[in-house]
Amino acid sequence: MSTVKMITDDDNPKVQEVYQDIRDSRNTKYIGNFWRYLAFDPSLLKDIWTNVKNLMVKETLIDKKTKEMIYMAVSITNNCSYCTHSHTATAKKLGMTPQEHSEFLSIVGLAAKTNQIVNGLQVPVDDIFDEDAN
Amino acid sequence: MSTVKMITDDDNPKVQEVYQDIRDSRNTKYIGNFWRYLAFDPSLLKDIWTNVKNLMVKETLIDKKTKEMIYMAVSITNNCSYCTHSHTATAKKLGMTPQEHSEFLSIVGLAAKTNQIVNGLQVPVDDIFDEDAN
Amino acid sequence: MSTVKMITDDDNPKVQEVYQDIRDSRNTKYIGNFWRYLAFDPSLLKDIWTNVKNLMVKETLIDKKTKEMIYMAVSITNNCSYCTHSHTATAKKLGMTPQEHSEFLSIVGLAAKTNQIVNGLQVPVDDIFDEDAN
Amino acid sequence: MSTVKMITDDDNPKVQEVYQDIRDSRNTKYIGNFWRYLAFDPSLLKDIWTNVKNLMVKETLIDKKTKEMIYMAVSITNNCSYCTHSHTATAKKLGMTPQEHSEFLSIVGLAAKTNQIVNGLQVPVDDIFDEDAN
Amino acid sequence: MSTVKMITDDDNPKVQEVYQDIRDSRNTKYIGNFWRYLAFDPSLLKDIWTNVKNLMVKETLIDKKTKEMIYMAVSITNNCSYCTHSHTATAKKLGMTPQEHSEFLSIVGLAAKTNQIVNGLQVPVDDIFDEDAN
Amino acid sequence: MSTVKMITDDDNPKVQEVYQDIRDSRNTKYIGNFWRYLAFDPSLLKDIWTNVKNLMVKETLIDKKTKEMIYMAVSITNNCSYCTHSHTATAKKLGMTPQEHSEFLSIVGLAAKTNQIVNGLQVPVDDIFDEDAN
Repeated sequence: MSTVKMITDDDNPKVQEVYQDIRDSRNTKYIGNFWRYLAFDPSLLKDIWTNVKNLMVKETLIDKKTKEMIYMAVSITNNCSYCTHSHTATAKKLGMTPQEHSEFLSIVGLAAKTNQIVNGLQVPVDDIFDEDAN
Repeated sequence: MSTVKMITDDDNPKVQEVYQDIRDSRNTKYIGNFWRYLAFDPSLLKDIWTNVKNLMVKETLIDKKTKEMIYMAVSITNNCSYCTHSHTATAKKLGMTPQEHSEFLSIVGLAAKTNQIVNGLQVPVDDIFDEDAN
Repeated sequence: MSTVKMITDDDNPKVQEVYQDIRDSRNTKYIGNFWRYLAFDPSLLKDIWTNVKNLMVKETLIDKKTKEMIYMAVSITNNCSYCTHSHTATAKKLGMTPQEHSEFLSIVGLAAKTNQIVNGLQVPVDDIFDEDAN
Repeated sequence: MSTVKMITDDDNPKVQEVYQDIRDSRNTKYIGNFWRYLAFDPSLLKDIWTNVKNLMVKETLIDKKTKEMIYMAVSITNNCSYCTHSHTATAKKLGMTPQEHSEFLSIVGLAAKTNQIVNGLQVPVDDIFDEDAN
Repeated sequence: MSTVKMITDDDNPKVQEVYQDIRDSRNTKYIGNFWRYLAFDPSLLKDIWTNVKNLMVKETLIDKKTKEMIYMAVSITNNCSYCTHSHTATAKKLGMTPQEHSEFLSIVGLAAKTNQIVNGLQVPVDDIFDEDAN
Repeated sequence: MSTVKMITDDDNPKVQEVYQDIRDSRNTKYIGNFWRYLAFDPSLLKDIWTNVKNLMVKETLIDKKTKEMIYMAVSITNNCSYCTHSHTATAKKLGMTPQEHSEFLSIVGLAAKTNQIVNGLQVPVDDIFDEDAN
């Protein structure tokens, strides 16, 4: 159930072009629902895909598996179900093992726990952390 | 300004023992405020330090810099100021360059943006993501 | 699946009265699930409906469509699926076009992205923003 | 630093009346900053104070200390610094001991951790939890 | 739909042992989905169950019903659907009445509202809340 | 206190160019801290400024004051202090009156409250909200 109608690639040449680029860049025939719903506005679809392609699909400084795990950490913390599913699946394709997945979950769990306790204690930030003072 | 009083290591042998283990494990004399405030309950201090030591300080499957960047991603998303400062500082010590820091910020920013848009569209999760069906 | 049982308007005169007021104020026969579940406590139902009626249904300073878009922004950020659906539907009834919906999504996406980057950088607030100093 | 100017009780009879009721109901001379800033709109001040007084200050079903600990749990999870400080202080006045404070922090920390791991695993809700089916 | 496969207790003796301890400690035959999915890593399952058992299932300082309501408050605020369902069900078993449930919802609703308004106003924390200064 | 050093416009021609465009587009001499810290990576600075300029500074479908109020709603809900300050200041410059500010705060407060109660009740989404079914 969504707030806009799903779009198929027959509807619009601009959408078709993005879908083709997704298929080529990712070497897959499958277009996920995120892109099919974003396509309700072809310009928005193109903008977001360009962001994702340049940062996540292309080779950059940080290796691809690590980038997906960082994306997963944010998506889990924001409780975005779709994003957690899609980025976990991608991280697995990029080699994340069940053992790494479990360790990753332990880290995001511990981070959430200590974030919460720091907030509860209202711990003041140490002066040594100030980059402007270094 | 905090909700409990800060504790120094003169107060309690159990606290002293944890502080010494922090100093030894991290090869530093400095004890951050998180530990000094957690020490209002020496058992809580010990529990949390044990969690952090085993998962973050010791060598595990995922390399230390990556672990800190995952921790940073959660802390930033939860907007925990103290945690963002301390884990960013640790990631830098472990070799995170300004270029990686910037790319990391672009990833957590893009993740937050797409999480938000997915939530706005209420995109349904694709069936292919169901691990139980595979 | 919910944590309380759904209530129909046959059960309680206080509930019937609120349902009638919802129907009259909104010129509809339909009572959404939010109200049907809130009715497990007729007083809570009445309180919340009174809040919503006075602020969102009645004419106030801010125009109705804008009010719904502000409500949507909070609901999306809190990732409340039900609230995102119901307030998006209402905004559409009040005239939000697909083009405005898309622009709205771009704004909430950009806000989430910059919020995240500000948190990552821990940018200090400029003194010029202090209203008490002006 | 705030987004509106702080108001003192000399400025407006409606504000004075609320401040007096706060002083009488809480048996204190002190008016916290929350009320002094809310007073930029005396009607908003009155509405919020009425909500807080009826639910938190008056005797209701749930005992006062427990109510404050529930309020603390939400405020910490939302990372509202002001609210965490003020409700922790109130809970202490109502008898929350350091030992209870520490146990409370362990609970909110564990809850955040398991919330996070559930989100990471995307655990489906068991059918037995459906109240409509019972 | 989940990111890992569900595990039954036939698969692993370490998992069986934890499941038996859950059944014994809670006096039930039912093992919820949280545990069945956590079991994809038996060590993670054991760690989390040990945390939950010691803090939530055993008798501690704070009474069990209150502990569950604090857990509910965090889970609702983090919008963890599974956790909200399971801890609401447990709180009901421990005696939370519909009237208390409704009052609880009013408290967590009011807390979220005032958290939000405090954040909107950026109310500065009063000096009197500083424990280090007392 | 921040996680990177603040940059002034003397350091880098790419930074100077963006600062000049901010000054020209906004008709001001003042460059806020967000931009001065983002400048630790001139490319990131340029990307984010381009996003903000095209969506928020230029005339688009939604009027500028409404756009800022939507941005405020997200920033407040994410509890981004810097963003709340800067976008509230901008909304005021664009004509948001104290009365509108107060009504806005009532809306974001009510939204947070009902989001929270919906999450607590786990209200199922009505079928009529499904755009794909319409």
